[in-house]
Amino acid sequence: MNFTLAELAAGTGARLHGDGNCRIRQVAEISSAGEGSIAYVYNPRYVKYLKSTGASAVIVTEELLDSCPAPALVTPSPRLIFARVAAMLNPTPIAPAGISSGAVVAVDANVDSSACVEAGAIVGSSARIDAGAWIGPGCVIETGAMIGQNTRLRANVTIGSDCILGNNNIVHAGVVIGADGFGFELDGEAWCKIPQLGRVRIGNDVEIGANTTIDRGSLGDTVIGDGVKIDNQIQIGHNVRIGNHTVISACTCIAGSTKIGSHCLIGGSVGIRDNIEITDNVIITGRTLVSRSITRAGSYSSSTPMDETANWRRNAARFRQLDELARRLNKLETDHENSDGHGLSVPGETSDKR
Amino acid sequence: MNFTLAELAAGTGARLHGDGNCRIRQVAEISSAGEGSIAYVYNPRYVKYLKSTGASAVIVTEELLDSCPAPALVTPSPRLIFARVAAMLNPTPIAPAGISSGAVVAVDANVDSSACVEAGAIVGSSARIDAGAWIGPGCVIETGAMIGQNTRLRANVTIGSDCILGNNNIVHAGVVIGADGFGFELDGEAWCKIPQLGRVRIGNDVEIGANTTIDRGSLGDTVIGDGVKIDNQIQIGHNVRIGNHTVISACTCIAGSTKIGSHCLIGGSVGIRDNIEITDNVIITGRTLVSRSITRAGSYSSSTPMDETANWRRNAARFRQLDELARRLNKLETDHENSDGHGLSVPGETSDKR
Amino acid sequence: MNFTLAELAAGTGARLHGDGNCRIRQVAEISSAGEGSIAYVYNPRYVKYLKSTGASAVIVTEELLDSCPAPALVTPSPRLIFARVAAMLNPTPIAPAGISSGAVVAVDANVDSSACVEAGAIVGSSARIDAGAWIGPGCVIETGAMIGQNTRLRANVTIGSDCILGNNNIVHAGVVIGADGFGFELDGEAWCKIPQLGRVRIGNDVEIGANTTIDRGSLGDTVIGDGVKIDNQIQIGHNVRIGNHTVISACTCIAGSTKIGSHCLIGGSVGIRDNIEITDNVIITGRTLVSRSITRAGSYSSSTPMDETANWRRNAARFRQLDELARRLNKLETDHENSDGHGLSVPGETSDKR
Repeated sequence: MNFTLAELAAGTGARLHGDGNCRIRQVAEISSAGEGSIAYVYNPRYVKYLKSTGASAVIVTEELLDSCPAPALVTPSPRLIFARVAAMLNPTPIAPAGISSGAVVAVDANVDSSACVEAGAIVGSSARIDAGAWIGPGCVIETGAMIGQNTRLRANVTIGSDCILGNNNIVHAGVVIGADGFGFELDGEAWCKIPQLGRVRIGNDVEIGANTTIDRGSLGDTVIGDGVKIDNQIQIGHNVRIGNHTVISACTCIAGSTKIGSHCLIGGSVGIRDNIEITDNVIITGRTLVSRSITRAGSYSSSTPMDETANWRRNAARFRQLDELARRLNKLETDHENSDGHGLSVPGETSDKR
Repeated sequence: MNFTLAELAAGTGARLHGDGNCRIRQVAEISSAGEGSIAYVYNPRYVKYLKSTGASAVIVTEELLDSCPAPALVTPSPRLIFARVAAMLNPTPIAPAGISSGAVVAVDANVDSSACVEAGAIVGSSARIDAGAWIGPGCVIETGAMIGQNTRLRANVTIGSDCILGNNNIVHAGVVIGADGFGFELDGEAWCKIPQLGRVRIGNDVEIGANTTIDRGSLGDTVIGDGVKIDNQIQIGHNVRIGNHTVISACTCIAGSTKIGSHCLIGGSVGIRDNIEITDNVIITGRTLVSRSITRAGSYSSSTPMDETANWRRNAARFRQLDELARRLNKLETDHENSDGHGLSVPGETSDKR
Repeated sequence: MNFTLAELAAGTGARLHGDGNCRIRQVAEISSAGEGSIAYVYNPRYVKYLKSTGASAVIVTEELLDSCPAPALVTPSPRLIFARVAAMLNPTPIAPAGISSGAVVAVDANVDSSACVEAGAIVGSSARIDAGAWIGPGCVIETGAMIGQNTRLRANVTIGSDCILGNNNIVHAGVVIGADGFGFELDGEAWCKIPQLGRVRIGNDVEIGANTTIDRGSLGDTVIGDGVKIDNQIQIGHNVRIGNHTVISACTCIAGSTKIGSHCLIGGSVGIRDNIEITDNVIITGRTLVSRSITRAGSYSSSTPMDETANWRRNAARFRQLDELARRLNKLETDHENSDGHGLSVPGETSDKR
């Protein structure tokens, strides 16, 4: 796939500067770009690379245009235009229609003639694979599951019975959608399993990273909205609901029945407890433990800073004395206030804060 | 599957109230239950739903019976009776006996005639699959592994050579049991691998969540007791031992050779270091780092609370000064005690705490 | 496989003490070792077991030789000699050459005649499987990927297109190498996917634990050095680079474009942010959050200590007041300094620390 720079300008909405006939075959990094490639710069730190780049064209802001030796796409958002250019040059591949002889498809499964089922895939009874969907090698689609148009499952993905995936999803290798949620009730000495009767329903334009797991609902469904992007090794418990266009980074763990709003940005290794609600437009920084509902948009954090181990050990030991230290500080302050006029007055403002 | 309310009362041990001939087909949530369904209420907050429920029957405590418009199962433990009812209405499916033509089973593997091996499963030499066991699509049973009666492996599960699973287990998709433990010894510049010669031995009535990994022992075995419930994406290192009926929530990481007692409740995203011992009946709250043995039953925690990022940043920065702050507080207190009688007496009780 | 003790001494570089004709078949633990086995002791605590061991031979330091009832290998490093002995007695199995009839291999894939492709494995177009490599059941090798000599993929491993694995690697079940990195750019309401065009390149003598994921580069490659040992359920983002002989424990999450040096020891459940650099010979203790570059070798930590939940709750609540407490302490100290000579002098040394 290749385009002229003029075609890329038209396709991405950027302004063309210089030779529009310049032919572009691939995106590249500004520091190592060669002939036929296009790179982007938005950070003035990289202007040195811009000046000497081997790229055939560049994507820059108006401000950097003076330093620019090559034809350019000009935009206030070089990263976004770069993403659009990269997508034009590397379009999503189209499923090679047909069912491999190495696949095992139930006789009553409904596989569209334009869909692809690769070798080693197993498609269960009454499952439905829509137009242009692509089921990779080793995938297992259990009975009654539905895979939407142009959705691609890479390798060794498992979709549980009756789960529903929308259109244009990308599901990476090793993902498990629709395993039983974790529900038990103590019955004497032992645990009684609560049957997990719901499904997972996933919207359109969702991407799910490798080895992520999304459990089916207990009663009712687990629901992932449109445009949600989920990184690798994320755990999503039963009956969780995630709003449209929320992004979740790797290794985050979301416990059951929690509801997350739209357009949230959730960092890596975050832990989110069960049965809480996070409103729209919330940012959670990496490694935060979210232990209560968040009702106001904004950025939230927990965790403690890294230090050299010897220092850290001393400080961490004090963590277990924090409440006592605070009480002792209160006591000292009170003593001061009561120490009739030895020049140790404590302003009311400070004591109000306690 | 459906039962009369009288049959459900008899089967679960709850007291029948009202029409025992009422026929129940499924469990439901109290707020959305319809004809033929049974729901439960134990929280007085939901009495409003109880009064207007469409459920054909409900499970309630004695206290809520007055607000109850429908036939009922009466019990002090509505959740437990609900779990039992749900289990009666949704019994564990029985394996459809037989080996799929799409499975590959070693000639000397021992597969019971009532067991099921689905398409795409691979069963190695001298492996044993007992009566009623169910090996899902894409599962790999390595040489010499044993799968107990009525144990079900969902899809794409891997059971390492010589590992032993008991009866009535449920193993969800993507689980890996019996990979090598992580054992190396530095040999000059490089790491010498220590062969991992043990097995994994799993008891009866165990459930293991999607994409969990349980490593084989180095010398001796990794052992999971009866009735243990393990959620998704949990990592269990070599030679770990977990006592009966312990429950472990998602994304918890247990390092090698650690021993965990019976009837423990371990929260999500917990980290447990290697070579320690946790006694019976211990509760570990979510995200705790367990860095030493726990010899007394009780509840244990670590982690820090979430805050708005701007506030958090200020407080987190102070964490690195904690020891210094504590020393300065000590100093101030000492100065006070030495400040001959200016009304700043510090009671012995406070100084004892230091 | 078995050796005389003299052969083991010669093969491992340890000094032989006693009967060199003693025949050894397997390694064992000192407390339970029987006839034909060899065990090691380096900890004086275990001398009691040493004295009564049933092992046919033992591996000990010079100092423990007096307590030793059996022939011995004498060394300052019993664990290392044990590892070497264990490796001699349990050599890496050689791939049974050939392609299973249950495997699906593209006609233009290049599989060496000494390589093994097991049943249920899928090998894509133009992939290359080198001499002695061993592709386990259910593995998927996408188009153009290369698997080096004597590298073994266990079960259900996925290797993405064009990724390169070196020689003598061990890749455990469920690993996904070469899924797309997590790269999106906000485009109005929705996220525009940035195509992930790089590969994963892995050196020689690397071991990768079960269900670990290593993403392909965005532009340029993700690179894992020689001799790196990676435990289970580790997440490695796009364009990460890891230096030779670094060891990473389970459940650690490394975000995109971060560079880690050689000979680092990274504990379990560590989180490492994106776009930072960690120099050589760095130790990170378990559960640490690495939020900035580390430019000096040494040991680094974060996290907070475990406590009984009731105590923890009181202390954790104070964490949100830390900055305020520190300011109040500053204030008290200042008041003291200003309290003209009431015996409350604060030495300059202390105030300098603030």
